[in-house]
Amino acid sequence: MATVAMVFGASLFLGWASLGAEADPQTPNIVLLLMDDMGWGDLGVNGEPSRETPNLDRMATEGMLFPNFYTANPLCSPSRAALLTGRLPIRNGFYTTNGHARNAYTPQEIVGGIQDSEFLLPELLKKAGYINKIVGKWHLGHRPQFHPLKHGFDEWFGSPNCHFGPYDNKARPNIPVYRNWEMVGRFYEDFPINLKTGEANLTQIYLKEAMDFIKQQAYKQPFFLYWAVDATHAPVYASKAFLGTSQRGRYGDAVREIDDSIGKILKLLQDLGIQEKTFVFFTSDNGAALISAPSQGGSNAPFLCGKQTTFEGGMREPAIAWWPGHISAGQVSHQLGNVMDLFTTSLSLAGLQPPGDREIDGIDLLPAITQGKLIDRPVFYYRGNEMMAIRVGQYKAHYWTWSNSWEEFNEGIDFCPGQNVSGVTTHNQEKHTELPLLFHLGRDPGEKYPISVSSLEYQNALRRISPIVEEHEKTLIPAAPQLNVCNPAVMI
Amino acid sequence: MATVAMVFGASLFLGWASLGAEADPQTPNIVLLLMDDMGWGDLGVNGEPSRETPNLDRMATEGMLFPNFYTANPLCSPSRAALLTGRLPIRNGFYTTNGHARNAYTPQEIVGGIQDSEFLLPELLKKAGYINKIVGKWHLGHRPQFHPLKHGFDEWFGSPNCHFGPYDNKARPNIPVYRNWEMVGRFYEDFPINLKTGEANLTQIYLKEAMDFIKQQAYKQPFFLYWAVDATHAPVYASKAFLGTSQRGRYGDAVREIDDSIGKILKLLQDLGIQEKTFVFFTSDNGAALISAPSQGGSNAPFLCGKQTTFEGGMREPAIAWWPGHISAGQVSHQLGNVMDLFTTSLSLAGLQPPGDREIDGIDLLPAITQGKLIDRPVFYYRGNEMMAIRVGQYKAHYWTWSNSWEEFNEGIDFCPGQNVSGVTTHNQEKHTELPLLFHLGRDPGEKYPISVSSLEYQNALRRISPIVEEHEKTLIPAAPQLNVCNPAVMI
Repeated sequence: MATVAMVFGASLFLGWASLGAEADPQTPNIVLLLMDDMGWGDLGVNGEPSRETPNLDRMATEGMLFPNFYTANPLCSPSRAALLTGRLPIRNGFYTTNGHARNAYTPQEIVGGIQDSEFLLPELLKKAGYINKIVGKWHLGHRPQFHPLKHGFDEWFGSPNCHFGPYDNKARPNIPVYRNWEMVGRFYEDFPINLKTGEANLTQIYLKEAMDFIKQQAYKQPFFLYWAVDATHAPVYASKAFLGTSQRGRYGDAVREIDDSIGKILKLLQDLGIQEKTFVFFTSDNGAALISAPSQGGSNAPFLCGKQTTFEGGMREPAIAWWPGHISAGQVSHQLGNVMDLFTTSLSLAGLQPPGDREIDGIDLLPAITQGKLIDRPVFYYRGNEMMAIRVGQYKAHYWTWSNSWEEFNEGIDFCPGQNVSGVTTHNQEKHTELPLLFHLGRDPGEKYPISVSSLEYQNALRRISPIVEEHEKTLIPAAPQLNVCNPAVMI
Repeated sequence: MATVAMVFGASLFLGWASLGAEADPQTPNIVLLLMDDMGWGDLGVNGEPSRETPNLDRMATEGMLFPNFYTANPLCSPSRAALLTGRLPIRNGFYTTNGHARNAYTPQEIVGGIQDSEFLLPELLKKAGYINKIVGKWHLGHRPQFHPLKHGFDEWFGSPNCHFGPYDNKARPNIPVYRNWEMVGRFYEDFPINLKTGEANLTQIYLKEAMDFIKQQAYKQPFFLYWAVDATHAPVYASKAFLGTSQRGRYGDAVREIDDSIGKILKLLQDLGIQEKTFVFFTSDNGAALISAPSQGGSNAPFLCGKQTTFEGGMREPAIAWWPGHISAGQVSHQLGNVMDLFTTSLSLAGLQPPGDREIDGIDLLPAITQGKLIDRPVFYYRGNEMMAIRVGQYKAHYWTWSNSWEEFNEGIDFCPGQNVSGVTTHNQEKHTELPLLFHLGRDPGEKYPISVSSLEYQNALRRISPIVEEHEKTLIPAAPQLNVCNPAVMI
């Protein structure tokens, strides 16, 4: 949370540009492996009973596991915008004011997207000489001005959105797939997804894109690879070799193929001898989509509810850092982390400072990763335009609770299937701003036992939390909401 | 499940006795580490987010983890009787007919206990020359005829029951603590447990008992150590050095002290150079007691409900086999295992066969442990006198569902806090014997999504399961119930 009021202007960019021209040979490559709707509990190392992620489990054994890592929003677009800007969606515009606490994302219909005024990670890394590639799902807007190559990426293979469909291709075309500026086809047409069998070759294509890019860049200037695969987002898919191989059904097939691919990527780095100069981080964009479970959704293990909610199941993410020679093997860090930290940490790896002219919510995790330090920082749980909860240390205070509306729930849409914590998983939006619902996540990771408001523990915890919330709210300047529907303000 | 109608008589015993006199020097020692109410999800290696079991996690890394391991009953006495006899409680008498599907155990008031007609593991191991010690909780009966030294153990330090109390010591005395035949004191008196602070030194005492026994026996005849500690059973306790050290509260303190002790036991085996001739198995007697959570109860991770129930949370147990030189490091076995298998497996290690004159439910796990084989076998989920459910492969069929009565539930006793699966976690005893509720535990470990009875999958699974249930029920000869209250049949 930078508070330095430094002007982040053209002169600074020039400075970076000249640095970029002669990139420090020690500057590490950066590989961010971002999953789609994969849950905290989907990894063997996090206790998935079928233990079908041997490569991710080994990545953790060789690296550092973060059991307390979060997303910035329980939905994909805002989460990804936060990762790439280091800022909460309320600051970077990836939210809506169409309704209170409504999550929003960027389907074709949304005319909004990532603003030119935001600095994206690849845009900044370029100034330190990085070559940047995104493979997979962008999700920061469909219109030409939002194209990833307009925001710092040098290469793109993937799509602007989820692989929803098939559509009729008249009023609503299928989602396009791009190679750089060129549209090379569409899902369900040129890139088939068989909804019946679950067969699609996309993860293999995304793997090849990653491998080719790594090989191409291995001994040149540093690279940033943002590998944003989507096989675990409904409709889940896997290629033929993986279909039917999981004990967990089709969802598990998708996880197995991704796990296998990550094993191949890490092995390639080792085979090329660049593992010690490549920082790799694995995480997910939001909690498992329990509305699609079990065949199309994953596991949030002991945590409450899932995607779309600000309970732990919606926002706590699997997370592993891997960097042989810099991270000693088999570490577990209890640092509270956030996808927004990947922005600041990546800049730090590149020898850069985050922009000084704006609030940055991500922190530099390198002291935690390489020196085992614990940095005191809060985690904010936003849902749309509302700060629903905050975590400080082991305490989580809910200022609002909501699963989903009775209307949705009665139609069978359930964000917390099989779970029902009285007064917590509410179907009305319940306001607790006067006396927040407080949980101790160490003793009670499942958010089942609110701490009595009359207890000394409650009072002590709130005494610590309240000023942080007040400061946050006082300094918060919401951006113009980009994800409103039918709002002339964004229809330009 | 032996069906050989061999007479298990005196002559056979004589044969073993002579074998015992010259025990094979290759015969391994056996150490069973049995936890009390510890849940599947309490181990870091099974995904507990605070990751406070480094020694158990390392034990798994060096040995073999069993994510599909079960108890024979979701309550302590019947589970322990099953472990030591290799037989379901319905066969060894550790159940009640006082009510349908009522679990029962052995407090002081129960006059029943383990029958002389049952062969206990230590009793049989003696015939192969083993010296046997139990440290901690016996729980197979209070009366003199049930004393562990009457049933094959050579040494005992511990108590016949849980550390409930304190009692008034008039009508109801505090639970005694024994060294062999001698009562050496009582809980809360000579062995203090401070209910307010949670301080008790018992785990340290039990650790010393284990270490001394191992040192004493290290280079003599083979030994069997049954280490049945109870710090994770409410009221949970820890010694001063561990109190307040866990992120999980007092329950976590107890887990940390046990984990530390197990680390010391394994290290001692290595320091003595006997690790390759000592088979060690870690598991728990039943699922975490969610009625005591969070401060006095553990975690069943993604599984449904807890202790007392036949949902996965009540009966799936953490389990690790450790035997350097015989088990290659870092294995995960998906073998369906059961505490009763520890009986048969231990006999196998000792070169013995299980008794041939009775049904034995435990199987020899050595082919799974040392050769990675998968043995096809069912798991039966009993609650008191009723077979509530069965697992065959990944399928679990519930013939009865019940959490607890409305009466108990309305008094605040909840075996499934925060969980509510419609038609599954029922408060009435629901009979499904005509059309069992079917779950696929690979796709749905939380038992939330019953498979449609009209599906082909349901029909195929039931076609496989039904004959196994029929055969089981046909051949079942229930023993006289030992745990009835006020039943003259056991008042003798």
